[in-house]
Parts: sequence; C-alpha cells; structure tokens
Amino acid sequence: MISVAIIGNGNVATHLYNAFLKAEDVKVTQVNSRKLENIQDADVTIIAVSDDAISEVSAKITNAFVVHTSGSFALEDLKNTTNKGVFYMLQTFSKDKKVNFSKVPFCLEASKKNDYLLLEKLAKSIGKKVYNINSEQRKKLHVAAVFVNNFTNHLYQIGNDICQENDIPFEILQPLIDETSEKIKTLSPKKAQTGPAIRNDKKTIKNHLKLLEKQQQKIYKLITKSIQNGN
Amino acid sequence: MISVAIIGNGNVATHLYNAFLKAEDVKVTQVNSRKLENIQDADVTIIAVSDDAISEVSAKITNAFVVHTSGSFALEDLKNTTNKGVFYMLQTFSKDKKVNFSKVPFCLEASKKNDYLLLEKLAKSIGKKVYNINSEQRKKLHVAAVFVNNFTNHLYQIGNDICQENDIPFEILQPLIDETSEKIKTLSPKKAQTGPAIRNDKKTIKNHLKLLEKQQQKIYKLITKSIQNGN
Repeated sequence: MISVAIIGNGNVATHLYNAFLKAEDVKVTQVNSRKLENIQDADVTIIAVSDDAISEVSAKITNAFVVHTSGSFALEDLKNTTNKGVFYMLQTFSKDKKVNFSKVPFCLEASKKNDYLLLEKLAKSIGKKVYNINSEQRKKLHVAAVFVNNFTNHLYQIGNDICQENDIPFEILQPLIDETSEKIKTLSPKKAQTGPAIRNDKKTIKNHLKLLEKQQQKIYKLITKSIQNGN
Repeated sequence: MISVAIIGNGNVATHLYNAFLKAEDVKVTQVNSRKLENIQDADVTIIAVSDDAISEVSAKITNAFVVHTSGSFALEDLKNTTNKGVFYMLQTFSKDKKVNFSKVPFCLEASKKNDYLLLEKLAKSIGKKVYNINSEQRKKLHVAAVFVNNFTNHLYQIGNDICQENDIPFEILQPLIDETSEKIKTLSPKKAQTGPAIRNDKKTIKNHLKLLEKQQQKIYKLITKSIQNGN
C-alpha cells in the first residue's frame, strides 16, 4: 500500500485524487494548500498547485518525500529539505472533462533511485505510459507542448475566424484537423508536410495573403518561411 | 445511373475513381489528361489535375457538364463553354492511405441549379457531408485549411525537433496533440485556449524564449502576441 497526500484543489489535484481513490494499493488524502497544518506524512506528498506557489508550499512541508506536478519547475527548486521528485503529467486537464489516465504520459524524476521506483509504481497504479524525464528535458518538453497545444489551438482559432467571417460552419474543418493529428502517428511531421509553402507555390501564397488580415498575414508569412527553411 | 468521367491520375483522381467504382448507380471512367481524345461525354466530367493544368484541360473539353476538384480555383475560371461546377473535397489525400469518404466534407458549387442537385446526388453516393460553398467562400476555406493543416503540421515538426534535440521520444506529445484536436469538437478554439500567452504569464514566456532557436523564437513571439490580441 502506497500512501499519498495531495496538496491543492485545482484541476490536476482533483483529477489525480479521484484516480488514486479508485486505484488498488493506494491510500490517498487531499489537503488545501492554505491548511497545510492538517497534512500528515505519506510515502509520496504531491504538490499540485500553481507554479508560483510551489516554492512557498514546499518550504513549509517536512514530509519525507515531496514531488510537484509542474512542467516548467525544476526539481532542485523545491524548498523542502527532505527528498524531492517530479510527477508531471503531459496532458491538458479541464474541470468538467473526464481524464483517461491510461493515455496520459507520466514524466517522472527523483533525486534518489528508490524514490523514482516508488513514483513509477504509483504512476502505473493509475496509468500506463511512464517516462524518465529530467528537469532539463522537462523544460524543453514544456515548451514543445506550448507549440503543439496552445499554438496549434490558436491556428484552429484563425481557421474558425475565417470560417465565421464567410458564413462557413467551422465543423467543415474538423475532419482535416483530425487527419492532421492522426497522420503523424505513422509519418514524421517533416514527411507529412504538404501545401503551398513546401511546394513553393508562389502564386497560391500570394493569393492567400490577399485574403488575410494583417496579423494573419504575418503568421502566414513567418510559418511559410519556416517551412521553406526546413526548420 | 449517373455517368462520371474523371480526368487525371493523381491521388484525388484515383481515390475518387475507386470510390465511384463501388457506388451503386454510378458508372465511372478514368482518363489520362494527356489522352483527352479518348474522353466520352458523361453526366459529370471531373477534372482532377493540378491547379496549373485546370485551365488548359478545361479548354479542350466539350462535355456537357465539367467540374474541377480544386480548393483555390474559381468556377468561372474553367474554360469549357458548357456547364460548370466544383466538386471540392476538403481533406488531405495520401497515395497509400485509404480514404474514409463518409467523413470527407464535399464542397459543391454549380452555375445551374439542376447541376448542383446532380453533384449533391453524386457526392451522397460515396459520402455523407455535403456543403454548398461558392467560389469566394471556397477560396477562404482553402486558406483556413492551410492554417489548420499545413501550419499546424509545422508546429508538430517544431515539437518533434525540440524532442529529438533532447532525447525525448516524440510519441510523448501525441496524447496532447490528440486532445487538442478533440477538445474543439465541444469547445470553441477561443474557449479552449490555455497556456502562458493567454494567462500573460511573462516569467514563463521569458523562460521559454531562452530555450528556443531563433526561428522558433520568432514564431513563439508572434503567436503569443496574436493570442494576446484575441485574434
């Protein structure tokens, strides 16, 4: 039986708490970060609060093994004086949407080998995909996630805006969006690249630019150039 | 029974030919664009060649009703002197990958109402999703598709590059990529937007920029600005 204490009550903390509740061999408690006096020691204490609050919360904890769940916060920046680790799940969590933990990549790190093995066991109690990712790698992974998630979503928004302005239902683009994310499961993004930029089809590029607003034009030009530079 | 003649032997022409072969009530022939002397009249003649060749091919055809399959070519630019239309499928077609036509949006246009009804019947013989899209809308739709397909794929490539440089398997990003495209089926992209840009988290943005190469930095800055401008 692994005992787990989760600090925080945001989306990550709550989804994680509910998942551990259902896991065999895990005993879990959840504590509000403003009521740290209520916390008891556990095999793993998980700080699942906003990045800005991790330092402060970790400084107040004397539990034996403390981990955080952030993609952009280094292991060494935890302020507890006991053992440290990271339990980062690379997925977006929405309040009302159920999380399929079997598909979530768990990116784990710990200063001590035994602690790492414990985190691995814990991750496998609710999930399947476990990766050993150090703090340097995790920082890079976090910025890569911004490109493929936040920035991609913004390109969807531009697509949505163009559709709306022209009385076209946005749903018409959904099959293409699905196919784009599906395709890279079997082809590298480099090999999957199509369109006027990679073909250097200057006529189409010129015609497209005429149809766009200023900010959209800037993005169109910059990404076209980046595709053509091959990076 | 609708008779169809397809001109061309690229991906679109071949996938379409194979689909019509299996359709009830459709009789289909396929003709190489360099052997137009072999073409016989049909209820619908579909020019499925590269954009650059549509003018030339259409000028040589005397068939009764001629349509093209291009997203960026206007109906009026067809050079046949008979009836004109457009049979545009909004999806990427790869040579070796089977196409699920029931998910493909068919964007149809015709100068004459009866011709439009014929195209609709033809589209429904192999597919399900039919939209009436005029040439002006189709041009806009084509540029929107560049954003959500070509440009999104390039963001995947940047994610892939960052992973490779740091010995991280790219597959680790796939669940996030899937969730990003899935999320907008129930939320508008505007509501689905998360991340440091929309939160105006200056510290994280600054840290991210330090980790990127020059071209990646430019894209990061521009899209962050665009997210913050709300367009």
